[in-house]
Amino acid sequence: KKIVTLSGDGIGPEIMEAGLEVLSALTECLNETYDIEAHDFGGIAIDHFNTPLPESTLDAAKNADAVLLAAIGHPKYNGAKVRPEQGLLQLRKALGLYANVRPLKIYEELKNFAPIKNVSEVDFVVIRELTGGIYFGAHELEETKARDINDYSAEEIKRIMIFAFETARKRSRKHVTSVDKQNVLATSKLWRKIADEVAQDYPDVTLEHQLVDSCAMLLITNPQKFDVIVTENLFGDILTDEASSLAGTLGVMPSSSHGESGLALYEPIHGSAPDIAGQGIANPVGMILSVAMMLRESFNESAAAQKIEDAVEKTFRDGYRTKDLGGTTTTQALTKAIIARL
Amino acid sequence: KKIVTLSGDGIGPEIMEAGLEVLSALTECLNETYDIEAHDFGGIAIDHFNTPLPESTLDAAKNADAVLLAAIGHPKYNGAKVRPEQGLLQLRKALGLYANVRPLKIYEELKNFAPIKNVSEVDFVVIRELTGGIYFGAHELEETKARDINDYSAEEIKRIMIFAFETARKRSRKHVTSVDKQNVLATSKLWRKIADEVAQDYPDVTLEHQLVDSCAMLLITNPQKFDVIVTENLFGDILTDEASSLAGTLGVMPSSSHGESGLALYEPIHGSAPDIAGQGIANPVGMILSVAMMLRESFNESAAAQKIEDAVEKTFRDGYRTKDLGGTTTTQALTKAIIARL
Ligand SMILES: CC(C)[C@H](C(=O)O)[C@@H](O)C(=O)O
Ligand SMILES: CC(C)[C@H](C(=O)O)[C@@H](O)C(=O)O
Repeated sequence: KKIVTLSGDGIGPEIMEAGLEVLSALTECLNETYDIEAHDFGGIAIDHFNTPLPESTLDAAKNADAVLLAAIGHPKYNGAKVRPEQGLLQLRKALGLYANVRPLKIYEELKNFAPIKNVSEVDFVVIRELTGGIYFGAHELEETKARDINDYSAEEIKRIMIFAFETARKRSRKHVTSVDKQNVLATSKLWRKIADEVAQDYPDVTLEHQLVDSCAMLLITNPQKFDVIVTENLFGDILTDEASSLAGTLGVMPSSSHGESGLALYEPIHGSAPDIAGQGIANPVGMILSVAMMLRESFNESAAAQKIEDAVEKTFRDGYRTKDLGGTTTTQALTKAIIARL
Repeated sequence: KKIVTLSGDGIGPEIMEAGLEVLSALTECLNETYDIEAHDFGGIAIDHFNTPLPESTLDAAKNADAVLLAAIGHPKYNGAKVRPEQGLLQLRKALGLYANVRPLKIYEELKNFAPIKNVSEVDFVVIRELTGGIYFGAHELEETKARDINDYSAEEIKRIMIFAFETARKRSRKHVTSVDKQNVLATSKLWRKIADEVAQDYPDVTLEHQLVDSCAMLLITNPQKFDVIVTENLFGDILTDEASSLAGTLGVMPSSSHGESGLALYEPIHGSAPDIAGQGIANPVGMILSVAMMLRESFNESAAAQKIEDAVEKTFRDGYRTKDLGGTTTTQALTKAIIARL
């Protein structure tokens, strides 16, 4: 099996190394062997190839069984014509990765770091539509006016809804919260109609609608109410970042992105943190848990994935904390501590 | 001076009554007398006139010195062709109310109700652009696809920026956080450019840019960092509801909306809460503080406004709590307690 790794910028290379160390420590428990192929992507690709997504990288990704991405971006590209983030949008679109999965788990041991008083029993996953909406409509920028177009087709909405209902069906509460702004947007009216239609095929799953503004409030006042949240691209961008604040640190949160081809991409949800790059103090847990998601979702290695997740939990329980969690454990030392607990 | 009142639906009439009682209790300290003229708006106007914003209501509002709105909406209009919210959007547009002001204040006495651990020294105001963007672009809904158009002109952005910088200039920290999604949207690129231009004219005010996703996180993890937040219509809708969660209850939050004509509209930010309508248990504080905002911002009655705000604070200090705050004080009793402390 082939895994393409895109280390990207900032702390990307450091955390990718950590993720791959954990993967290789597991070699003996895995059913397959994995070929790892590293490629340039993001800012580093702009520096080398003048584009954030070189053809060679895209070709390699298309031919891989899974793509592992660390992080991209650097302030030096702010305002530039060619920017790292464009590569990320192009890659998502080119690989057809329409379903972005961001699970929220609060570690008992990290509760102190949550800004919210009551995070007991918070356990939900956000399914964000990733290849449609205002991200991919035309963007027209002139001197004195600008326009963005927000398009959704019934087909695009239907496949992400099915993805969300399938996800809910596998969870114990089997509850979907569909988020839109149907009192204002045409795309949201269509969104809600399709959600209701798809729900017909899932009598075992309950469906609830929330407006995006209410949802932004409920995520803080009553996060326990959510099980599976499904929403469109822009709302998902905002709500997943907001939801991540419940965990206390962005540094521990993984994600996966799926499409129709079976190829999937895995990445921590945090950014490239250029301010701490190269110091060996980045929290590698988001990356390491992205490796676990990859093993479970792309390679059917649930046992190995669980091993990683348990080891991370143990490591926190044993008091290891990187700088973002107020500690002094280095990236390397934390990775070693996790490996020792596999 | 003429005030048009729009009680609207659900708890609207009960809280409007409370607001007007407080206003009339202040008669002796006010420099002017006020004519109050009540009109139908929202669901009740649909029932009476088949439209949420009858011409007679709009005409009266246009000829008023200020408009007081309680709340509109009821689930019975969900999915209907004509809906109460449409009236609100039409009214904002017809009165040219482009600047929506939502101050966030955390009452010392209500800190227990805040879901966030550390709300000390949170004190910011959100300025939301209210008559542009995706709310007012074309909405096209077909059987299998839908489209919304997000338009902003430089002029629209400039006037809201000036409003925000003027607001910041009057505050002690003099800091503006402009929120956009400039790594994706053309309208956000224009937004950021104009923000930078307007900032040139305000050397005494500092300007910072945040992406909307980061902002949604920072509102929870570091709300102390904000002084004046300025953002476009849709982002403002989401972020103000999110921010309101910091206060512990929506029930205490007022807002004002301003335009070029000098006419302004005042309303609590909560909805019409049809589930508790008619029971006399609604929290009237958001409405009462909207009256205070009206006195200060439309009628230059700062002393009277301050009296109301101090009385509300004292009432909380003396332990009065409506149901949303876990107490049993009725709408009437709370209003009387506030009046007794004026
Ligand atoms: C970098 C940016 C374009 C991207 C997005 O908005 O999708 C990021 O915020 C994310 O959530 O993955
Ligand atoms: C009722 C709705 C159209 C409105 C909006 O989205 O502007 C409301 O949520 C608000 O924030 O005033």
